[in-house]
Amino acid sequence: MDLTPSSFAMAVDAQGFLEPWTSKIERRLADMAGMYADADAERAAIAAGDPLVYEVFQHDMPEHPGELVVCTTRLYPGRVGDEYFMTKGHYHRIRERAEVYYGLAGEGRLVVAVDDRTDVIPMRPGTVAYVAPRWAHRTVNTGSEPFVFLAVYHGDAGHDYGTIETEGFPLRVVERDGAPAVVESR
Amino acid sequence: MDLTPSSFAMAVDAQGFLEPWTSKIERRLADMAGMYADADAERAAIAAGDPLVYEVFQHDMPEHPGELVVCTTRLYPGRVGDEYFMTKGHYHRIRERAEVYYGLAGEGRLVVAVDDRTDVIPMRPGTVAYVAPRWAHRTVNTGSEPFVFLAVYHGDAGHDYGTIETEGFPLRVVERDGAPAVVESR
Repeated sequence: MDLTPSSFAMAVDAQGFLEPWTSKIERRLADMAGMYADADAERAAIAAGDPLVYEVFQHDMPEHPGELVVCTTRLYPGRVGDEYFMTKGHYHRIRERAEVYYGLAGEGRLVVAVDDRTDVIPMRPGTVAYVAPRWAHRTVNTGSEPFVFLAVYHGDAGHDYGTIETEGFPLRVVERDGAPAVVESR
Repeated sequence: MDLTPSSFAMAVDAQGFLEPWTSKIERRLADMAGMYADADAERAAIAAGDPLVYEVFQHDMPEHPGELVVCTTRLYPGRVGDEYFMTKGHYHRIRERAEVYYGLAGEGRLVVAVDDRTDVIPMRPGTVAYVAPRWAHRTVNTGSEPFVFLAVYHGDAGHDYGTIETEGFPLRVVERDGAPAVVESR
């Protein structure tokens, strides 16, 4: 496989847009239907306009273990019922692949899970969050502004979204009395 | 080999210090003697107090291809003769390993080289610089404040400093009429 032939610069602007990006993911609520606990609230929000939940701007790289993929995520503020907007969450297709996040704007939580273990890591600008190899990971916007972060992961890591679509995440981050709280999934 | 067992948070403060770090590199000019073109100026600066050129704060990880190492570098402003303060520069011991830099404060240049190719990439806060696999890389502080950046690279990448100690870098970044200029090494 050909490796990236040249070194080069990208830039993240104040809004967290990565330039140049080569692929973009836009996830509306309908794209992650069934992931929020409150199915009625989810259905109503989709019917009322299907909000944009998050965008990912990525610079794709060859699927080689020696490459690194860079992307930025803009996760918008909002809730479905009492549950904060979140990403779908994934394992890496090659499980033994870590990921590094760097908080750029806003605030949120990184929720991680592996086997019967879970953890919730607060993130704000300047936080470097290390997703250890093998851990599933999902981010949640617990603030009132877009939660923006940079991510770096291996070129060959890949994504396994299906396991979480099927099995769900063991923890949810919800608003309780105006503040974030972590509850176990039903 | 045991993988990192848990996900966790670090943080970069306004000065670019990574907490928690597990290993720290401090390079004074004497630690990189012979790397600057002006040997007389280098000798005089070492004799006059041997300035601190840069510090690296790193969180070490298992030397496994699926891990990622995070570090921050504080490269101080200064010159040796007309040549700006710079890092030693290295290849990765495993050549097919990329590296991602993210500019946090100050300004500088990323100088890269492979085979008979070279490039000089300006960096400032918000710049994401991609060091392609196989390329040697060195950073240079062209400003008047500390040049601070975050780096992410593979757990098994390793460092080969020796090749550059022996062969040098094909380009140098120097001050000409008060502004940075790139010249070929003699």
